[in-house]
Amino acid sequence: MISKAEIKTIASYKQAKHRNEEEVYIVEGVKMVDELLISNQEIEILCATKEYNNPDQVRAKKVLEIKEDDLKRISSLSTPNQVLAVVKRQEAKIPIIKSKIVLVLDNIKDPGNLGTIIRIADWFGIEDIICSENTVDLYNPKTIQSTMGSIFRVNVTYYNLSQFLSLVPKGHPIYGTIVEGGKNIYKEALTKEAIIIIGSESHGISSAIRDLITHPITIPSFSIAQSAESLNASIATSIIVSEFKRREV
Amino acid sequence: MISKAEIKTIASYKQAKHRNEEEVYIVEGVKMVDELLISNQEIEILCATKEYNNPDQVRAKKVLEIKEDDLKRISSLSTPNQVLAVVKRQEAKIPIIKSKIVLVLDNIKDPGNLGTIIRIADWFGIEDIICSENTVDLYNPKTIQSTMGSIFRVNVTYYNLSQFLSLVPKGHPIYGTIVEGGKNIYKEALTKEAIIIIGSESHGISSAIRDLITHPITIPSFSIAQSAESLNASIATSIIVSEFKRREV
Repeated sequence: MISKAEIKTIASYKQAKHRNEEEVYIVEGVKMVDELLISNQEIEILCATKEYNNPDQVRAKKVLEIKEDDLKRISSLSTPNQVLAVVKRQEAKIPIIKSKIVLVLDNIKDPGNLGTIIRIADWFGIEDIICSENTVDLYNPKTIQSTMGSIFRVNVTYYNLSQFLSLVPKGHPIYGTIVEGGKNIYKEALTKEAIIIIGSESHGISSAIRDLITHPITIPSFSIAQSAESLNASIATSIIVSEFKRREV
Repeated sequence: MISKAEIKTIASYKQAKHRNEEEVYIVEGVKMVDELLISNQEIEILCATKEYNNPDQVRAKKVLEIKEDDLKRISSLSTPNQVLAVVKRQEAKIPIIKSKIVLVLDNIKDPGNLGTIIRIADWFGIEDIICSENTVDLYNPKTIQSTMGSIFRVNVTYYNLSQFLSLVPKGHPIYGTIVEGGKNIYKEALTKEAIIIIGSESHGISSAIRDLITHPITIPSFSIAQSAESLNASIATSIIVSEFKRREV
């Protein structure tokens, strides 16, 4: 059974400061933890109620039985669901580019958007995401939970974007959505290898890197009133990535 | 200046019960209220701090000055932003179909998803959305705020979906995503007029209406591990709608 000291420690990981110090993050709920157990992530502690019965849980370094009430204490969910895991971070400090299409996120602020973008990347076979250093915390519980397990399959690296983009070989296409003067993504020929920059929810792509875009694009609006102001960052990402990938079909 | 009784009444609209009784909903923040003021919505009360200075606010039936502290009391936002409006509902009781493409939402449960889908519809010029009766409340503050103003331009009607779909003329295409046996949306010819059913986040399209789909479709996954389980409902909507509309370009 979990001890009071362990409850206190794990509950402290709700705060970014403590998560960062220990280089861990929290994964919660049956579905997410089932996915975690078949991933290659290193599981420090798994706290499970009697109801949770995935036999793979033995692969965690430490398995602790926990009561419903104590699970509530350590959980960030409004309705905790049987199991919570403390996982060791395995992030690369330098961006490694494996996939043909790489997403670059510039100052995404909403954890739900970041999580959803990771899920989109996973669906479309994009293995690498580079985030600006001011992008929301990957290890925010809301980000983790909204990836629905895709966090275990996509490499996310935080890095200085100007520096990262300056390392891109000359001629390698860098796409970015801009409001004025971008080419219609539905009509434009798209390259098979590409870096795609996604701007922040409120400010778009920052001026520091806007000039590095070699292929400015735009998603045209069909709004009758021409009034819908913008698309949510994760929605724009899905439309753009879908356009790149469908041409491979 | 706003009275104590008025504060109490407006604060009570945080609860669905009171909003429903009075047939009102709440719109908050500078950006949303600016959009509201240029819409055709009937504004019962507008509560604004001294900072809010949109001259159109006079078109509200009643304008009340409010102090920051009192705004916090009536607001559902974590950081209230200058202004809050009480708006009269204008919903149709019977679905009216004006646009060529109509979205049908089957049991969408997350207010953020519903709001985002309304925003997508607005962007792509879709004027009509029909929601199943068990879809999340349109007037939930989270739904309203996540539409980013698109709520004022899209008609959303709650209706029994079996009944609605039975009214569709024979031969009119009804699309729906199904996991097994749907046709690849990227390869499929898509009709210009269509009803598109979007299933719930966890259960997809319910069995009661699944048989009414005339054009089963699917969004193929490009995931290397074939592991990404599904796309978020609003993400799937954006990809499908984008596919329909890009062919008009």
